[in-house]
Amino acid sequence: MKVAIQGQKASFHDIAARKYFSEDIEVVACDSFEECFDAAESGRADVAVVAIENSLYGSINPVYDSLLKHSLRITGEIYLHIEQCLIGLPDAGLNDISEVHSQIMALAQSKEYLKKNLPKSRHIEEYDTTASVELVKNIGKIHKAAIASSEAARQYGMKIIVRGIETNKQNYTRFVVLDPNPAHVEGANKTSMILRTPMDTKPGALYRALGVFAKRGVNLFLLHSRPIKETAWHYMFYLDVGDDAATDGMAAALSELDAQGCEVTILGSYKNGQNI
Amino acid sequence: MKVAIQGQKASFHDIAARKYFSEDIEVVACDSFEECFDAAESGRADVAVVAIENSLYGSINPVYDSLLKHSLRITGEIYLHIEQCLIGLPDAGLNDISEVHSQIMALAQSKEYLKKNLPKSRHIEEYDTTASVELVKNIGKIHKAAIASSEAARQYGMKIIVRGIETNKQNYTRFVVLDPNPAHVEGANKTSMILRTPMDTKPGALYRALGVFAKRGVNLFLLHSRPIKETAWHYMFYLDVGDDAATDGMAAALSELDAQGCEVTILGSYKNGQNI
Repeated sequence: MKVAIQGQKASFHDIAARKYFSEDIEVVACDSFEECFDAAESGRADVAVVAIENSLYGSINPVYDSLLKHSLRITGEIYLHIEQCLIGLPDAGLNDISEVHSQIMALAQSKEYLKKNLPKSRHIEEYDTTASVELVKNIGKIHKAAIASSEAARQYGMKIIVRGIETNKQNYTRFVVLDPNPAHVEGANKTSMILRTPMDTKPGALYRALGVFAKRGVNLFLLHSRPIKETAWHYMFYLDVGDDAATDGMAAALSELDAQGCEVTILGSYKNGQNI
Repeated sequence: MKVAIQGQKASFHDIAARKYFSEDIEVVACDSFEECFDAAESGRADVAVVAIENSLYGSINPVYDSLLKHSLRITGEIYLHIEQCLIGLPDAGLNDISEVHSQIMALAQSKEYLKKNLPKSRHIEEYDTTASVELVKNIGKIHKAAIASSEAARQYGMKIIVRGIETNKQNYTRFVVLDPNPAHVEGANKTSMILRTPMDTKPGALYRALGVFAKRGVNLFLLHSRPIKETAWHYMFYLDVGDDAATDGMAAALSELDAQGCEVTILGSYKNGQNI
């Protein structure tokens, strides 16, 4: 099985993909979300695994934009606890470090630690967390460190100088599995969708839309509003609800939304993921 | 008037603060959101201006976390269109650039441009966009560039090599004005709040909560769900609605929410901002 991920081996995308499928998958490393989508759509990969939400910044809107443009659908999800490590050469200690390399979100997540413990250090952006470990290893200078997973340190035989330097210890990222030819997922109990309320939105349009789920006892897991660029004060909503879109109840709910003038794009039905 | 901002002069926070108040304000430059909150609470500044939402990543959750911890309240908002410029020494051209310095969000927003046009460049994080322009000027090497506002280029007498390098041209950031001693805002037509539905959440808790606004014709501007860390599947919601919390109708709505077992923290009532 070939799985397209953003980043390379031992990146958090890679860890998430292996935990979801197995260690035996073949990873297709991509530089961007869009490249992941393209890889799965063109057949270079069977599926893609991409981050869609994180606990600091909420939904990753560009991934939703790509989901609207492409026909890939969500068939699974993985919640991954993110532990960032400061990684250096085998002989390096904290006091040796004056340059820290990593991917942009890893630098952001570790900002408070760096500010407090390495206030004079320079922070250099690399395209991937694991790539930054490889780079520090290859350059071989003791003042350079990377921020990445403990897995990345292990893989390159590098030292974990400090473990858990992320500001928010409850830091998690939610990844979704995207399939170009989705089959019905047995036991699916969650559906992601993008909902657009009618253009002539009156107060209460979202309230009425949520009513179709509430009156059927369907739970709500996620709801994020997002302004629609072209139209001031016209919103779309990212919605995760607790049922399979293939049930009769959900079919009725979706047809009620249609009657209300809502546009709904179903992104997929899948099994509720667990923290790993 | 002293205004605490994250970043320094000619940063986007500075531009937002000057457009909202006037050019005559005295800016109190802070390194972090928390320092801005502290500055306004300790009296080192009269108010703070902080980014709370951007069009790529939605709500900036750490700012909401700080709002829950502090007693500052929102008294105004500003939407600022963000145009990122690649800025170099007066003689520099695009082909000279191999190192790009900027604040982390500015690097993220310009990632596609850099990947396409400067694929071999190194990206180095600085704490602020304007500080990166100052640094490039002070070092005086032609291969270094910064990403910042056109205002920052003007202030330091530097060259705009390319204007508008942000990926999303509809890129805007929403800033709020935070006051330690908020007076009632005349003409307020918008209220921000944090809503927690009851712990024994049954399907429909949010639906019922939104009903108190819908039945009074109060519009909804923003709704972001966020999991509450300590409690799996227990959510809080960031909510912006179209009315002043001081009206009788809103008072009745808030007391209905209380009766439903919702916990509500009012973050402030203020005038709906315009894009600038």
